[in-house]
Order: sequence, then C-alpha cells, then structure tokens
Amino acid sequence: MPELRKDPIIGRWVIISTERGKRPSDFASESKAKDNKLCPFCYGNEHLTPPEVYAIRSDGSRPNTPGWKLRVIPNKYPALKIEGDLNREGEGIFDRMNGVGAHEVIIESPDHMKDLADLESKHIEDVLKAFINRMKDLRKDVRFRYCLVFKNHGKEAGASLEHTHSQMIATPIVPKSVMEEMEGGRKYYEYKERCIFCDIIRQEISQNIRLIGQNENVVAIEPFAPRFPFETWVLPRNHIHRFEDTDEETLISFASMLKSVLARLRTALNDPPFNFIVHTGPWIDGRKNHYHWHMEIFPKLTRVAGFEWGTGFYINPTPPEEAARYLNEINP
Amino acid sequence: MPELRKDPIIGRWVIISTERGKRPSDFASESKAKDNKLCPFCYGNEHLTPPEVYAIRSDGSRPNTPGWKLRVIPNKYPALKIEGDLNREGEGIFDRMNGVGAHEVIIESPDHMKDLADLESKHIEDVLKAFINRMKDLRKDVRFRYCLVFKNHGKEAGASLEHTHSQMIATPIVPKSVMEEMEGGRKYYEYKERCIFCDIIRQEISQNIRLIGQNENVVAIEPFAPRFPFETWVLPRNHIHRFEDTDEETLISFASMLKSVLARLRTALNDPPFNFIVHTGPWIDGRKNHYHWHMEIFPKLTRVAGFEWGTGFYINPTPPEEAARYLNEINP
Repeated sequence: MPELRKDPIIGRWVIISTERGKRPSDFASESKAKDNKLCPFCYGNEHLTPPEVYAIRSDGSRPNTPGWKLRVIPNKYPALKIEGDLNREGEGIFDRMNGVGAHEVIIESPDHMKDLADLESKHIEDVLKAFINRMKDLRKDVRFRYCLVFKNHGKEAGASLEHTHSQMIATPIVPKSVMEEMEGGRKYYEYKERCIFCDIIRQEISQNIRLIGQNENVVAIEPFAPRFPFETWVLPRNHIHRFEDTDEETLISFASMLKSVLARLRTALNDPPFNFIVHTGPWIDGRKNHYHWHMEIFPKLTRVAGFEWGTGFYINPTPPEEAARYLNEINP
Repeated sequence: MPELRKDPIIGRWVIISTERGKRPSDFASESKAKDNKLCPFCYGNEHLTPPEVYAIRSDGSRPNTPGWKLRVIPNKYPALKIEGDLNREGEGIFDRMNGVGAHEVIIESPDHMKDLADLESKHIEDVLKAFINRMKDLRKDVRFRYCLVFKNHGKEAGASLEHTHSQMIATPIVPKSVMEEMEGGRKYYEYKERCIFCDIIRQEISQNIRLIGQNENVVAIEPFAPRFPFETWVLPRNHIHRFEDTDEETLISFASMLKSVLARLRTALNDPPFNFIVHTGPWIDGRKNHYHWHMEIFPKLTRVAGFEWGTGFYINPTPPEEAARYLNEINP
C-alpha cells in the first residue's frame, strides 16, 4: 500500500509509493521503447493495458478493442491505490495516512507518432472533455479532495512512454502549492474584492508585453515572475473556479489556444521536454470567488534544479518579456 | 542588472538573471571541460578566475597565485550583483526589486580529480569554516537578509564545472521554503515550547529506523517525509539557530559526518549527481528558539520532476526506512 506522509516542519505531504519501490540499482536510466509494436498505448495493443474506464469510440466498437480515438485506463503502476480507507495515524510527532487515490492515464490518440500539438483542435477538446468526464466521476468519491491533471512529455520531463498521454491523480489531500495559491487568492480577494487572476489577465492584456495569445475566451501569457524559461500559463478569461465547471465555448477556445501554444513552444525550443499542470479549485473548498483555474506549462530547458528544489528560490535566465517576444515571432 | 520578481499569488520571489540571459538556441546542452588544463578552478590557473576574496594558504604565497588549499572567488556569472540599491517598485499589481546580492564560489580543493568526500575530514572542516568566514563578512551588509550555501555535484544536479566547488548567494529576501520552515518551527514552538528539530532528532535517535549516523555532536537521518529517494539530512544535536554561530567542536563532528554520509551515498548510488543545501536562520529574524540549522542532501535519481515542481507534491518510490537500511549496510 502506498503511504502519504507529512513533513512536520513545512506541512507538505509526500507520496511514498512503495508499489513502485526501487532498490538503488534500479535507478540506472531506463531505455524507452522506440518500437511502437511494443507500445501498450498503441492501436491494436489494447490487451496490454488495464481495462479502459472511458473511451471515445465512434464506430460502436467494444471496449478494449480497436476502434477508439481516445482511451482512459487506470495506471498500471499507480502512485496511489483506489482501495482502502484513509486511516490517518501518528508515529510520535509524525503523521501518515494510507495512499488512497485514483491514478488514471489518458491515451490522447491511437497514433504513436503524433504529439498533442499535432492533433486537431476538436480532438484536443475531446481530451479536455475526457479529463472533465473522469473528474466528475472521481469527485463522487468522498475520500478525494483534489484531482491533479498533468502531462509529462519527453523523458527529461518524466515520461516513461513516448506515446502521447496525460495523467490524473485524485488525492485525499490538497497539494501544497494549490493550498498556497488558494490562500494568496483569498488574501487578495479580501483586500480588493476582486479575483487576482482576473486582475492579472486584465493587466496582461492591457500591458501586452507578456501576452502570447488571446481569443474570445482564453489568454496565454508568460507570467511576470516565472520560475523557468518559457514558463507559460493559459487561462480562461472569464472567472471559472474549477476546471470541470468550464462551459463548452470556453473549452473550444481553450483547445485551440493550447494547440497553438504547444506548437509554438515546440518550434521555438526544438521539441523540448515539458510538463503541463491544470491548477483547479479543490473539491473541499466551496469558495468560488478567489480561485481561477488555469494551466501552467513548463518546458524543461535548464538543469539548475536541485538548488531550486531545496529552497523554492528559482533563478531564471530568461525574462518573460523576452520569451514572449520570441514566441510571438514564431509561426509554427 | 538582474531583477527580483515576486509572484503575486503565492508570494514567491524569483531571480530573473538577465546577465545570464539566454536565447532559446543557447539551451542546447553544454559540454563539460574534461581536460583539467582548461579548468579555471585548477591549481596554476588562478589567473582564469576573478580575484579571490578568501583563501587558505599555508606557505605565505600571494593571492591569486599557486600555494593554496582552498579559494573563494566571486562567481564570474553571478545570479545577483553586488552593486546597487534595492529599489523596490511596482508594475501594476506586480512587485520587483533590483537583483542585488553576492554570489561567490568556494573552490574546495586544488585537485581536479577529488570530490568533497575524498578530502580529509580536517579539509572539509576548512570548507565549512570558509563558508562561515564569508557569511560573517557578508552579514555586515545591511541589504542582505539571508545567505544560501549550496553545492551542485554532477551535471544533472546543475554543476557546470566538475572541479569540486560549492557556492554561496547572499540575498535581499528570505527564500520561500526557509520562511515556511521558520513559520512551521514557530507554530510548533508556540504549542510545545520546544524546537521541532530537537524533537525530531530525539525521536529519530530513539526509533533508530531512519538514522544513518550519529556522533557526539551531529546526527544524519533519512527524514520521515522525504521528497526524493535517499534524501538525507545532517543536523547538529545541540540547538543552534544559525550555521555561522556553530561552535568549533560541532563543526569538527559535522565535517567528519558529512564525509561519511557523502562517501556512503557515492558508494551506494554509484556517484550520483547531488545537491546539498545549508538551511540556516535568516539574518533579519532574531528569534533563536524555533529554528535549527541543518544540511539537506538530495541525490538526483528520479526524473519525475516537472509534476513535482508544478505542484509541490512529491512522489517518492523509496521509503526512508529502506534507504537507511541500505546506507547502513554500506562500508565505503
């Protein structure tokens, strides 16, 4: 059983994922399957994955057979396990609980050779809708307080399979950085009676020096204080607290903006490894005014990582204004 | 001029280090000088570095010539610059200040082929004393509030030169994670009237399942809720608020423990890239009871990084009890 443990000083929970337990000798770098015949996410290899929990199948084909456009499956090596109670307990001054949660994989396309940026805008919309569909289902489980949606692209960004996919983890705790964002948003709201994200969007549109895209419902920016070169945020222009409450029109706009942003980052930075993370309001917090869901995208370009991990203090060689200028010149 | 910028939501400062400014094409991986004749940190190459600000020279040799055992120099490519005022200012809802600070490099040994773990315990003590000497000097500058001491070992951990060295950055702000530790320590102290680190040390010694070393003045542990496999903390047993206030005896014990821990990690994990970071009380906070300096060491073994960077939520495949058992079997 995986275990959640809380750092008693900072209050940060970590997942000790014993199921993935590794002896030190296992840390040698793993080679990736370049042969798509061995890829469990490929069309025709459905028998190599756990049974699907959701799929888009236009031809009425049966589950776990060919005929799909998108599949969602439980992760074969889950960080958290779906069975069991939380069982919070202490060990002297320390706190732990069972590693209960859901860990699913969204196989975004049957085609091994395509990245998310290569898919049609409509197809990316289907990916977003798959996230929402699964979140609405997982949200019914009262043990879960948050759902993380993220993508690792490229080995350096943590992807163990190259076939385009993203992941979701429903957790019994709210991650620390989401809590901090909520808290920051709350303080700002109490002072200004306005959402800080809405104010950032207004300022970015009016300043127009870090903006890299806008359409009717969505903006993309290089944030003012980015941790990483070419860190990019995509935000709905209207105030929407939780990702899964997004309206159809905004989703359509979001899909097309995401495609454009990912394509430009790929062209500008020569297909960099990257992560994206959907930041959304926790399920246990009903206050809708001070949080605003958005997606954060981090190309992995710099190696100066350990220091930053250890201190939370980031050194970024690229000003966001310069990154924005560069991205705005790209025509992918 | 580098710039400090504050994320308006979370309140995290970042350094936008324009001096190190890179165009996207510069992010291709840089090759490291394998030929020590080109290494600016090597004995005889003193003319290749900025003039030293501190050195240990036993033979009365002149500064910036051979004859040294250890040198401290300003970083040639500083993240922060020593000249200038703070000039805090706003940009709409955003905050920034000048990137004022000091960035120095401690060349730990003249020998290109030796790691820190290879040096005599007495020599490591000299390295610690060099940190302290420089911190006491930098502390006189009222613009600075904190001094980060850290080491990047190996390219994957951010080292751009392989010759053994560590770094210090004096900053006009206190890094977020240090603030959080201070805050966590304060809350615990208010509740218990005891230092949380002292309590952790007592529990770890009595449980003896995550302890990997103890001597009269220092303990080394795998912490209860580690973010990374084989994350290791080394702490003075006595309550000492700031690193630079450490007594001679504790420093001697610390040097010998650090040598033992680094040697065991190297043997156990096949010379992994790693970072160490000295966590010490900020210069602006006089409250000595609720913070306890220590060193945190992170071998870089896992690649699942972007997700963790984005959320502060870490997935660690190796329980600390297992890492401790493994390290305790090692005889380097």
